[in-house]
Amino acid sequence: MPIFKVVSKKKINGKVKKIFEDIKKTRKINKIPNFWKTIANDPNTLERTWESLKQIMKKGSLDERTKELIYIAVSMTNSCEYCILSHTLAARKKGMTDNMLKELIATVAMANETNRLVESYQVEVDSFLK
Amino acid sequence: MPIFKVVSKKKINGKVKKIFEDIKKTRKINKIPNFWKTIANDPNTLERTWESLKQIMKKGSLDERTKELIYIAVSMTNSCEYCILSHTLAARKKGMTDNMLKELIATVAMANETNRLVESYQVEVDSFLK
Amino acid sequence: MPIFKVVSKKKINGKVKKIFEDIKKTRKINKIPNFWKTIANDPNTLERTWESLKQIMKKGSLDERTKELIYIAVSMTNSCEYCILSHTLAARKKGMTDNMLKELIATVAMANETNRLVESYQVEVDSFLK
Amino acid sequence: MPIFKVVSKKKINGKVKKIFEDIKKTRKINKIPNFWKTIANDPNTLERTWESLKQIMKKGSLDERTKELIYIAVSMTNSCEYCILSHTLAARKKGMTDNMLKELIATVAMANETNRLVESYQVEVDSFLK
Amino acid sequence: MPIFKVVSKKKINGKVKKIFEDIKKTRKINKIPNFWKTIANDPNTLERTWESLKQIMKKGSLDERTKELIYIAVSMTNSCEYCILSHTLAARKKGMTDNMLKELIATVAMANETNRLVESYQVEVDSFLK
Amino acid sequence: MPIFKVVSKKKINGKVKKIFEDIKKTRKINKIPNFWKTIANDPNTLERTWESLKQIMKKGSLDERTKELIYIAVSMTNSCEYCILSHTLAARKKGMTDNMLKELIATVAMANETNRLVESYQVEVDSFLK
Repeated sequence: MPIFKVVSKKKINGKVKKIFEDIKKTRKINKIPNFWKTIANDPNTLERTWESLKQIMKKGSLDERTKELIYIAVSMTNSCEYCILSHTLAARKKGMTDNMLKELIATVAMANETNRLVESYQVEVDSFLK
Repeated sequence: MPIFKVVSKKKINGKVKKIFEDIKKTRKINKIPNFWKTIANDPNTLERTWESLKQIMKKGSLDERTKELIYIAVSMTNSCEYCILSHTLAARKKGMTDNMLKELIATVAMANETNRLVESYQVEVDSFLK
Repeated sequence: MPIFKVVSKKKINGKVKKIFEDIKKTRKINKIPNFWKTIANDPNTLERTWESLKQIMKKGSLDERTKELIYIAVSMTNSCEYCILSHTLAARKKGMTDNMLKELIATVAMANETNRLVESYQVEVDSFLK
Repeated sequence: MPIFKVVSKKKINGKVKKIFEDIKKTRKINKIPNFWKTIANDPNTLERTWESLKQIMKKGSLDERTKELIYIAVSMTNSCEYCILSHTLAARKKGMTDNMLKELIATVAMANETNRLVESYQVEVDSFLK
Repeated sequence: MPIFKVVSKKKINGKVKKIFEDIKKTRKINKIPNFWKTIANDPNTLERTWESLKQIMKKGSLDERTKELIYIAVSMTNSCEYCILSHTLAARKKGMTDNMLKELIATVAMANETNRLVESYQVEVDSFLK
Repeated sequence: MPIFKVVSKKKINGKVKKIFEDIKKTRKINKIPNFWKTIANDPNTLERTWESLKQIMKKGSLDERTKELIYIAVSMTNSCEYCILSHTLAARKKGMTDNMLKELIATVAMANETNRLVESYQVEVDSFLK
């Protein structure tokens, strides 16, 4: 078995158990998603990732839904299937509608097109942008 | 000269001139940015890109500022310098503050990290996500 | 059938057969992995890839295990599932432990995050780096 | 100095000198481009890269110009400025016109857009494609 | 269900129906591929994408087969499985042989290698390329 | 000014100042690199990034030099110029020689090639890899 599976139940103790409880409470869920159960193979990475995400994704100048939309946009650009699915679900819970998702996808796809137009034509930076 | 420069003034006529006028009016700007002046070498691409962007980036279920944030997120993930600069300016005009930009960057960077965690650990899709 | 399958047994002759024998002997394996059996559809690509990999991946200033870790790091950044799996197996054969793999993944994920921080903030190159 | 510069004249001997002569003769040029002069810091990489490119880029079932167009398409997708410039020059020498280049860019940009539409919508593979 | 499935039959009316008819006629096919049936969830995106592709992919200075080869090259660089499969089929219909496909793949792979050599060595742009 | 510059001296206080002191001490440097001075515009991101990097990049099952090599491999694959330069310097301080760097680059470039071969040929995962 070359790569890690989700942690077995008997390994969910100590730091891992505490973080899993915090995830359930903060996210209001009963079941820990595979993402967390898999990176729990490395408790330091689990802890660092959870603490970072909690800080970054909470309401600030941007609301939580907008942050989820940004997360999806990155995941779509990187073609990360799991990430698209899990953050789409998270965004829906925060009020993202079908129409919002469609507009998000259209924007992501178009941005990927014009990014390549800019790089292909090697557009010079306008002086008012510097 | 292997790649195209911005179109010379004498080539700004017909379809190109009409689109440039529409860009100025719609975007409320006096000067056409280099992006449009460069892709104007191919009037079909200029027209298609402008018509698509006008349709995609206008207020819909998502407001215009959120769409600009999404555009920046993609451009950051693709490391397109010009695109980051120009859409950051556009987002600022639509009310993006410094703090919003900082939160946007933190979210984009974190998403790029967890996208790679998911792909590295080859996390299995949870049944509730299918 | 639009893309190629693994080569059928009757096509394993001449140059292909000789390379397969070399792969088995050099790698100390009995079974040719699908990667080689698939690119064998193009014997020139098979030969070039095998000769290049033999030269690049052998012990030099860097030991073989370190080179496999680098290979995995690239494959994770490119999200190439097959490549991650096959080079993880190769690295394990050369002594990579579970803990090394966990640290590798953490480093790869973090590098993908800070790469985007650098590009998003468009950090200027320090004079001492030029 | 953290990364390598072009090799100094006194290092152009033995294997490197022989390959430089072959490049000049094959490509019908008088001056070795910086790409070759830089990777010459590692004579093995210089040799391997030149031998591979000579084999891959020569007329086969695809003509040389089409292969250059493909090279540019990849380089645009990867945003490699040097690669776009040098292969655009090479393609021009093989008959690529301004209009061909414009159509190439439009195709590359559009493909990058629809690639993201496919990944974002997670389009299921049609049975007739399997 | 977080992401959209192919549109149900009862939603294939109005603009969507008209575009589907045009796709069938233009492409000379009887069955609408999943790509179009999925993005049809957003009729504006369906219309924009179809109109753009029709314009871009038709014979111009470059013939249709060459454009399909370019499309495949981008899709391979982006690792878009569906896109590779569907455009390989399209290219075959326009005369791409097995040998052409093998040479295409070899070129794409090599370009991805030298793109990274250029970026890793940070090769300086030759004055004759500027 | 659309994107942030390095923080001005008068903003280097409180949390930022403390972290800058820690960076200088831990890294044994007198001057804070632009990376840290730029992300210091967002003290939370500065703190999170520094704490994460300190934890990830310290000697564990993998030594510090190997971790720097992995960091460079990712940065080369993502074409992040600043990241390549700064981590190459860091790796040199930890004993990376010119020959090691050359072998690292050759491995990174080759991995990018075979990653694309795998994705282009859509190689099936061997049963012994699952």
